[in-house]
Amino acid sequence: MPAPLNFRRAYAGKRVLITGGLGFIGSNLARRLVALGAEVSVVDSLVPEYGGNRRNLDGVAGRIQVHVADVRDWPKLPKLVAGQDYLFNLAGQTSHMDSMTDPQTDLDINCRAQLAILEACRLHNPQIRIVFASTRQIYGRPDYLPVDEEHPLRPVDVNGINKIAGESFHLLYSRVHGIRATALRLTNTIGPRMRIKDARQTFVGVWIRRLLEGEPIEVWGGEQLRDFTYVDDAVEAFLLAAANPKAEGRVFNLGGPPPVTLEALAQLIVTANGGGVYVVREFPRDRRKIDIGDYYADDRLIGRVLGWKPRTDLRTALARTLAYYRRELRHYL
Amino acid sequence: MPAPLNFRRAYAGKRVLITGGLGFIGSNLARRLVALGAEVSVVDSLVPEYGGNRRNLDGVAGRIQVHVADVRDWPKLPKLVAGQDYLFNLAGQTSHMDSMTDPQTDLDINCRAQLAILEACRLHNPQIRIVFASTRQIYGRPDYLPVDEEHPLRPVDVNGINKIAGESFHLLYSRVHGIRATALRLTNTIGPRMRIKDARQTFVGVWIRRLLEGEPIEVWGGEQLRDFTYVDDAVEAFLLAAANPKAEGRVFNLGGPPPVTLEALAQLIVTANGGGVYVVREFPRDRRKIDIGDYYADDRLIGRVLGWKPRTDLRTALARTLAYYRRELRHYL
Repeated sequence: MPAPLNFRRAYAGKRVLITGGLGFIGSNLARRLVALGAEVSVVDSLVPEYGGNRRNLDGVAGRIQVHVADVRDWPKLPKLVAGQDYLFNLAGQTSHMDSMTDPQTDLDINCRAQLAILEACRLHNPQIRIVFASTRQIYGRPDYLPVDEEHPLRPVDVNGINKIAGESFHLLYSRVHGIRATALRLTNTIGPRMRIKDARQTFVGVWIRRLLEGEPIEVWGGEQLRDFTYVDDAVEAFLLAAANPKAEGRVFNLGGPPPVTLEALAQLIVTANGGGVYVVREFPRDRRKIDIGDYYADDRLIGRVLGWKPRTDLRTALARTLAYYRRELRHYL
Repeated sequence: MPAPLNFRRAYAGKRVLITGGLGFIGSNLARRLVALGAEVSVVDSLVPEYGGNRRNLDGVAGRIQVHVADVRDWPKLPKLVAGQDYLFNLAGQTSHMDSMTDPQTDLDINCRAQLAILEACRLHNPQIRIVFASTRQIYGRPDYLPVDEEHPLRPVDVNGINKIAGESFHLLYSRVHGIRATALRLTNTIGPRMRIKDARQTFVGVWIRRLLEGEPIEVWGGEQLRDFTYVDDAVEAFLLAAANPKAEGRVFNLGGPPPVTLEALAQLIVTANGGGVYVVREFPRDRRKIDIGDYYADDRLIGRVLGWKPRTDLRTALARTLAYYRRELRHYL
């Protein structure tokens, strides 16, 4: 196990850009980096269907430079990346269903804009260190469990295809152009500041909302196994990956505590809430074609190489998340 | 081995659209389809750096509808695909080097436009049958030889990443939306009507040109093993794939006669030409990073499923190609 990194030494006084920085993971990362003494800028499009929410920087907004801009707006990219020490590249369209109904938008954000960001780095800041937010969605329906980084990529939706391209561009630019980049393949990430308006970011978001509004949770299927990373653990992985040269040009899965079925998760969340109801429904027909079945990650590689491990158990993760939204609900509807 | 298909029965009177139809393989396919009695339309951008050349339809131009249009011009696509029985989708940017110096253009053609073509089919002609020209480039440096369809995809350049996305979109639309599509992963294809101005389509093109102009051929490295498909054999594969329901939603490698080293190929081509000189040069530095080393395909799957096999040996392929360009050289410079 590698020695723990001194994050303050790595990040204090460093210039850091976060795309998607008003979003769920991006804003949690921004807050942590501010606490570590970094000079943080965020870019976010604030597209209403996506994860960006100004409330996510509540209390630290004065210490973060916020650019409301879309990564699809290429002419803005050179100025944004110039002079930055680190780029945490989290801007993305995350809805699998939206990627099927509006595939070109998914492509423009998750694939085309990623190449534009990398070109901007190549031409205007080749020294930058990048960590890219990839996704377990690119594996498709697993051949085996847990899924390690060697598992074939067989995307089941447009989002998966574009995320593969986005990830591949990062690794290619690292290998061929020397733009040091790492990709983290995230699984379901949960915690404060996630989108709860609907299921576009994660179904857990809309579950939280319904529980707090006294509505029953809808569990589709219920038997599927999933793993969940608490957002603080995900943030830790991004910080570790950016600061460690051993991560350059590599891909790592993030996982979490032992996987649970969706029905077990519903029970846990109802218990954590001190009450609530869930109903199990048949998996909707239109989503079945792009469903991946059971999934959980083998995340031992990032443990071995970077010393990361998930620290937050699922009960704690759910309790903290519920506590946040009990207080903040009205800012997230 | 499946029974041979009656191509005339499959294609006579059928409406066929070929993107990239003034290009190398596209035009050979168009000519064959005209001979089989199909109603052929071609779309080609005639971008000077690509493969399109009006001379490629010499003698049959009156029997083919030619649309000079770019697949990046989305509004034109619905009208082009509507009412067609078959779409042979061969429009592409083929230069690996160009994909590194101008990656966004490669993306717009090989990835973004492919999705637009499929969306046009989904919305305006969901009954169409598509064969997509993919490439061995997506495998990257082989782990083992010959390379079968199960080999991991590890693209070494921007072109490879975008072609994976383009191919994946076809397979996804087949699986999820029922748009019947097949992808053929082509290796080096050679024959009449290939681009010989430069090495943008295949290095064999520029070798032919230099030989016929009395200049020495430059062989880079020389030890690399490669396989070559003669264009008539490639055309046969496209025709078989489109007409056989067993090909729907599937991917097949095309190969050729036994592989040869590049130096052996240079010797063969000099002999076929009845004279000429080749020089072996060190592999250029800037290309080494995106070179794939040895490659040859395992093409037994398409043999088993569709009954395809390469019929033309390499000497014959080279002799026919040289004969064509001896006559036609001035139209291809």
